[in-house]
Amino acid sequence: MNYLLFLDILGVIAFSISGVLASMNKRMDVFGILIIAFVTSVGGGTLRDILIGFPVAWMRNLVYVHVIIATVIFAIVFRKKLVYFRRSLFLFDTIGIGLYTVLGIEKGLAAGFPAIICIAIGTMTACFGGVIRDILCNDIPVIFRHKEIYATACILGGLVYFLLLYTSLEDFWVFTISGLVVMIMRTLAVIFKLRLPSVYKQEDISPKL
Amino acid sequence: MNYLLFLDILGVIAFSISGVLASMNKRMDVFGILIIAFVTSVGGGTLRDILIGFPVAWMRNLVYVHVIIATVIFAIVFRKKLVYFRRSLFLFDTIGIGLYTVLGIEKGLAAGFPAIICIAIGTMTACFGGVIRDILCNDIPVIFRHKEIYATACILGGLVYFLLLYTSLEDFWVFTISGLVVMIMRTLAVIFKLRLPSVYKQEDISPKL
Amino acid sequence: MNYLLFLDILGVIAFSISGVLASMNKRMDVFGILIIAFVTSVGGGTLRDILIGFPVAWMRNLVYVHVIIATVIFAIVFRKKLVYFRRSLFLFDTIGIGLYTVLGIEKGLAAGFPAIICIAIGTMTACFGGVIRDILCNDIPVIFRHKEIYATACILGGLVYFLLLYTSLEDFWVFTISGLVVMIMRTLAVIFKLRLPSVYKQEDISPKL
Repeated sequence: MNYLLFLDILGVIAFSISGVLASMNKRMDVFGILIIAFVTSVGGGTLRDILIGFPVAWMRNLVYVHVIIATVIFAIVFRKKLVYFRRSLFLFDTIGIGLYTVLGIEKGLAAGFPAIICIAIGTMTACFGGVIRDILCNDIPVIFRHKEIYATACILGGLVYFLLLYTSLEDFWVFTISGLVVMIMRTLAVIFKLRLPSVYKQEDISPKL
Repeated sequence: MNYLLFLDILGVIAFSISGVLASMNKRMDVFGILIIAFVTSVGGGTLRDILIGFPVAWMRNLVYVHVIIATVIFAIVFRKKLVYFRRSLFLFDTIGIGLYTVLGIEKGLAAGFPAIICIAIGTMTACFGGVIRDILCNDIPVIFRHKEIYATACILGGLVYFLLLYTSLEDFWVFTISGLVVMIMRTLAVIFKLRLPSVYKQEDISPKL
Repeated sequence: MNYLLFLDILGVIAFSISGVLASMNKRMDVFGILIIAFVTSVGGGTLRDILIGFPVAWMRNLVYVHVIIATVIFAIVFRKKLVYFRRSLFLFDTIGIGLYTVLGIEKGLAAGFPAIICIAIGTMTACFGGVIRDILCNDIPVIFRHKEIYATACILGGLVYFLLLYTSLEDFWVFTISGLVVMIMRTLAVIFKLRLPSVYKQEDISPKL
């Protein structure tokens, strides 16, 4: 349980930083930055907890809010360092979806849901924060921009998770490997412009359906 | 109860196909298509169940997920046939809102809510899936594109439902007629460009308020 | 408790009128206007009640729906008067966020949440209705348009609320003053183009991150 809380905090930090970067791109003031960081980082978990029927985690445990506020202050103070990475927003968003995919699956399993529902929960949990962030920041939603591999990486990471459950691997490694699969797959896909085999042929669909 | 489940499955199929068509228009990969189909078809019912306080239907009964996956595979395999209908997306979206309006009302009644709340639940249930689909696909939300008659058809179908409840008609016909009213009204309105009597006069409102 | 209901009704009226004005700008028909007014005015409270775990207020008490319908009829009949205020949409939206910020905090406190969570609930409650309204009307979300001070006014109003709680002021004045702080701060900020001290320096961040 402590391990799950630790993963959750890491995900909150990653998504908070991605929210800070996205809102600083829009030149919001310090409270606007705080709001976007907050909604980005708790959005996915809130959806997850409401769907499962758990009490909403960040409302029961002040550690989330404290971590978000500390992360926002840290990210604003060290913003110059952060933006040296030209791909910082991508980096922290990718860490966030990896962690939230695994965490959503874990919480779904803890509530007794079958594998396929857990993967759906994990994927929606991971994608929801980024979608809200982009809508509020008036950006094209990330799920559409990197459409080839955003949700896809989460689903495939979820499949790996349940394959590994059948092995004799310890839980820790099941979590870690499947989370890394999500992150690495998205990163490689963007770097090498990988795509799944297309379902379209040139003549299949006219441009205007 | 079995009749409601049957209607629900039909609605899930119709909205899944509309999600497949919308996401194929954006040339998403197979998992992207699956996600959009999934969110479109369970979105409305999820909102409905959370508002009413029921457990979320698709999380308790695997038949929904299986139907969605089967529909997505079917729709991808037969995509050429589907797009022969130039208005396929419109068609399946219209079937979906008709079914979900009636279903939302049914579930609202089953939970003991008064007529006007049931109509509100039915309308929001019907419209929510399509709105999410369009936001995630980066289209103008359907509720705005066909603004004259999208939600309007749902509300009027809901009013017909409660008028028919006062007749001696069997439940089956109450469901069927009011569902068809939603679908036919939206279709006719789009074909004949029908609108409700306008509340605007030319001089009423300046273009920039 | 009656005082809270009264504030809630006032907030519903203000957000309903803002929904009517926004949807009339888009020349929606009378049911389209009703839907937008409905979603704008109950959106924030619905999110609040779901997060807190309360039953959703407008589904349990028909007074909300009746007030919304009456307000929409009133606003349509007197639309010429309403639009004489060139800033009517701004005005009613501002009254709405002031009331909903305080109301969200009140309900959070009644449910036993700590101050910082209550401020988060109040801010999200206040902002959510307007964001939905703008997304459905295909406008740039208000939280982004007036980004400098929309959420910021809510957060600062929330801080004032908890400062006043430590004084010997009666509850009525705590509510009223902190609600007015939200409204006045947003209004002054827009009139005088006030901003918080910026976290950006010219050379800090390149325009394209």
